[in-house]
Amino acid sequence: VSDSDMQLASRQYRNETRTVSWGKTTIGGSSNNTVIIAGPCSAESAEQLDQSAQLLTGLGIRNIRAGAFKPRTSPYTFQGLGLEGLKMLAKVREQYGLTVVTEVRDATQLEEIIEYADVIQIGAKSMYDHGILRRCGKTNKPVLLKRGFGTTLQEFVQCAEFILSGGNENVLLCERGIRTFETKTRFTLDLCGAAYLKQHTNLPVILDPSHAMGYAYGVPDLSRACMAMGVDGLLIEVHPTPQKALSDASQQLDHAQFTELMASLRPIAAAINRTII
Amino acid sequence: VSDSDMQLASRQYRNETRTVSWGKTTIGGSSNNTVIIAGPCSAESAEQLDQSAQLLTGLGIRNIRAGAFKPRTSPYTFQGLGLEGLKMLAKVREQYGLTVVTEVRDATQLEEIIEYADVIQIGAKSMYDHGILRRCGKTNKPVLLKRGFGTTLQEFVQCAEFILSGGNENVLLCERGIRTFETKTRFTLDLCGAAYLKQHTNLPVILDPSHAMGYAYGVPDLSRACMAMGVDGLLIEVHPTPQKALSDASQQLDHAQFTELMASLRPIAAAINRTII
Amino acid sequence: VSDSDMQLASRQYRNETRTVSWGKTTIGGSSNNTVIIAGPCSAESAEQLDQSAQLLTGLGIRNIRAGAFKPRTSPYTFQGLGLEGLKMLAKVREQYGLTVVTEVRDATQLEEIIEYADVIQIGAKSMYDHGILRRCGKTNKPVLLKRGFGTTLQEFVQCAEFILSGGNENVLLCERGIRTFETKTRFTLDLCGAAYLKQHTNLPVILDPSHAMGYAYGVPDLSRACMAMGVDGLLIEVHPTPQKALSDASQQLDHAQFTELMASLRPIAAAINRTII
Amino acid sequence: VSDSDMQLASRQYRNETRTVSWGKTTIGGSSNNTVIIAGPCSAESAEQLDQSAQLLTGLGIRNIRAGAFKPRTSPYTFQGLGLEGLKMLAKVREQYGLTVVTEVRDATQLEEIIEYADVIQIGAKSMYDHGILRRCGKTNKPVLLKRGFGTTLQEFVQCAEFILSGGNENVLLCERGIRTFETKTRFTLDLCGAAYLKQHTNLPVILDPSHAMGYAYGVPDLSRACMAMGVDGLLIEVHPTPQKALSDASQQLDHAQFTELMASLRPIAAAINRTII
Repeated sequence: VSDSDMQLASRQYRNETRTVSWGKTTIGGSSNNTVIIAGPCSAESAEQLDQSAQLLTGLGIRNIRAGAFKPRTSPYTFQGLGLEGLKMLAKVREQYGLTVVTEVRDATQLEEIIEYADVIQIGAKSMYDHGILRRCGKTNKPVLLKRGFGTTLQEFVQCAEFILSGGNENVLLCERGIRTFETKTRFTLDLCGAAYLKQHTNLPVILDPSHAMGYAYGVPDLSRACMAMGVDGLLIEVHPTPQKALSDASQQLDHAQFTELMASLRPIAAAINRTII
Repeated sequence: VSDSDMQLASRQYRNETRTVSWGKTTIGGSSNNTVIIAGPCSAESAEQLDQSAQLLTGLGIRNIRAGAFKPRTSPYTFQGLGLEGLKMLAKVREQYGLTVVTEVRDATQLEEIIEYADVIQIGAKSMYDHGILRRCGKTNKPVLLKRGFGTTLQEFVQCAEFILSGGNENVLLCERGIRTFETKTRFTLDLCGAAYLKQHTNLPVILDPSHAMGYAYGVPDLSRACMAMGVDGLLIEVHPTPQKALSDASQQLDHAQFTELMASLRPIAAAINRTII
Repeated sequence: VSDSDMQLASRQYRNETRTVSWGKTTIGGSSNNTVIIAGPCSAESAEQLDQSAQLLTGLGIRNIRAGAFKPRTSPYTFQGLGLEGLKMLAKVREQYGLTVVTEVRDATQLEEIIEYADVIQIGAKSMYDHGILRRCGKTNKPVLLKRGFGTTLQEFVQCAEFILSGGNENVLLCERGIRTFETKTRFTLDLCGAAYLKQHTNLPVILDPSHAMGYAYGVPDLSRACMAMGVDGLLIEVHPTPQKALSDASQQLDHAQFTELMASLRPIAAAINRTII
Repeated sequence: VSDSDMQLASRQYRNETRTVSWGKTTIGGSSNNTVIIAGPCSAESAEQLDQSAQLLTGLGIRNIRAGAFKPRTSPYTFQGLGLEGLKMLAKVREQYGLTVVTEVRDATQLEEIIEYADVIQIGAKSMYDHGILRRCGKTNKPVLLKRGFGTTLQEFVQCAEFILSGGNENVLLCERGIRTFETKTRFTLDLCGAAYLKQHTNLPVILDPSHAMGYAYGVPDLSRACMAMGVDGLLIEVHPTPQKALSDASQQLDHAQFTELMASLRPIAAAINRTII
């Protein structure tokens, strides 16, 4: 294992994990915080986001996720609410005090995402986009960079280097499942890779069990596994009525399942001396 | 997700996870036990096995693993002690009361393995071997079947069906990492697949983080993740002096690392209401 | 095998392969033409492009490929000549009568590429970019869409649907190697996938053995294999002095190797009743 | 690319490709022969084998393939005719002068296969079997070693080393498709890997497009691609009535398709100065 392919992201360059903060959230550094970022796959309506925000704030969670510009595979399906969705998310922030994690799909909405998001998510399908990476290097907002599902760890970290070398030190690495020969699950969550990233990079590591599994039944077990890894955050999809979701219906937890999951995560966090925020 | 490809292993056939017992060990069924099976990659000497057995018994562990017939990739490296290794393991069982999990490499030593082992391990490279599978269907000893690293979950369960349909109900499924495009780690531990097996089959599930990771530094974090999944067992490699090991030197924990790991696993087990045995 | 995931690209929608034309080139339809698109990985200098153009025109080849904006993995290596490179390619077109195939890396140079290129190449790393796909649906210039190396055939064709449904009928599908567990070669050229695309879609199919193999020694054999498949085009990298190339040095043929390869392709084309253009 | 992992199989050890001969067949060495080995997936009846033998001899083909012991995935499907199948194949050899290539599934029938086969095929699922490899090192009959579908080229060649180092010099390497994320085809034929094997090893290379593709529609195009690679042999499945085949029904050509394919292979062989035998 060589680290010659990374520079600013490496433990050789900086031994301690970087501290990244936004709103009421701080992860990395000397904190032992694990942030929960949860919410629906897509922003679908003001009512749906209200329900989601009430669930999250009731559980003490500080960050909501929801997509407004969806990188859908087919042109013939729901593509997201676009700018209207971003405005709905801004209202949720104002009303509930939640900070917002939302995804840039492509360069045509990049400036709006930078304006509206508290944490700019670069999705798995956009991870190699030099234009987006370089532009995100010129803001100070935290960037949650998702690993492409066909991307090696080396390439993944090098994409983070594009942002870091541009001047933005607030980069979060998110493992969300890689594509393998196995088709009974949507992707394969690469926790060996997460262990590599924790050991070899100085960037906070976030895990996304929902997209990896693709089926709600496996998300609680995987979320508990991710928590026990001792990572800096989890990204979990939860929807008021998953069966009616306009995207990723099969993998979103309902509110009862999510509430039960959160209750089970807290003693695991305590067992490894981490604090869920 | 369809279960039509499995019969005796399916939750449709039998809803409760099967109970499997040997020596002082019981897993599955209504137990909440998670068994730790630990020891060196290869049986190398009586002294090495003594040191290993003392470590394990001191930590309350009931099962030792060690290979006598090694499925090495190259013909020009250490191939295992063979029958002499099995005899050393039998002495360890007698002296320390540990039950023995050891691997059949190919049919030429199958009868000796069936005679000497308490749990017959079928390795990833032998998983498709009809001769071994059918013969193991005719014994009652528990069989720990490892998933081939290029094997789909469907094929994996179908190989278990060869044993079950022969009459042996004591089959344990072991996920030990699949082969993907990622090369910074040895294999990719498929915990999404483990979640699938827990949901869809009635067989106990064992996880092997050591072979998946391939590097000792990641094994503790992965072991904690595996424990939090709520599975029936963990297979972990530990060696008195890993740097001198005759096989898999890079991935074996030393005794201090393993002792520390075991201490960290207990509160996680407690958090999910499981008992480590 | 179902085609429900494709619409305008399917043989159900339109049984005959679409005809796509630019400059002196026509492929698909009732032609039996196989177009050779060759040239260096990157445009590096006017002199280099002159040498390349002389080689190609001397061999009767009508299309040159060269990148001006390079999607490099690391931010610390050569990133391409940018707009200057496009202007050099325009001069080559004017002087030698070659049409130009060049890649859009990200949205920041999309308009320049659309202006300067005869065939707009969307690279493997940009294949999912909705902004680029939708914009390319609004031009009539041919688009050579490369398959992402972690992309299924279903997703690949659906990305083509984004362009087709926007109104641009001139889409070429390019298989260039997928990422697998094998690391002795750079990627794995998926000719089974090419056979699928030929059978199930109405779009011309182009193959890129250079990027798949990653090593010059294998490119001639693979190019001959691709030719014998009966596809609509080959994309081959050739450089005046490969060992001095600023990118992809190991996989580019030198002029002598390429000349020899072209001589060997012609009898194979004749054997399957195709015409090399 | 390093060759340190191979010894007797390497071009460093012996620069020229080894000559392997059996019956009326010689490949490798200074010959430019490409051998066609064809026939049904499974031996199903004397009548079926008669029809197959008549087809092959009518086309000047010298080798028949058919399995008697089938490594089926499920225990609940047809497992092959066993010893009876081998006896039927022996009659075909006697009556038609065809030499027989047939597969050992596991060690329980190894001696029978060695006795009855002209070329011992070790299948993809048995490739790692040390017992079989070592035993095959003690015979002089040619061994056609198929690459496991989850096997790296390095491991593949090392398995060949087990046979070579035992004393049997007559080893043929067969690439038959690897397992990747792509599911529209059964496997992914790795012709980049074949180019590697041709360059780096001294063993004859055989390609099996039928198992790789999994669908008859793609087999002719892939067979032509394989022929144009300049390899030492092709393994192609053909059945009198594919839709009634007891195994691999979807991928077998019928007699008319195979006859047409053979006609198209001859001019390609001529174009690259090879002789089909």
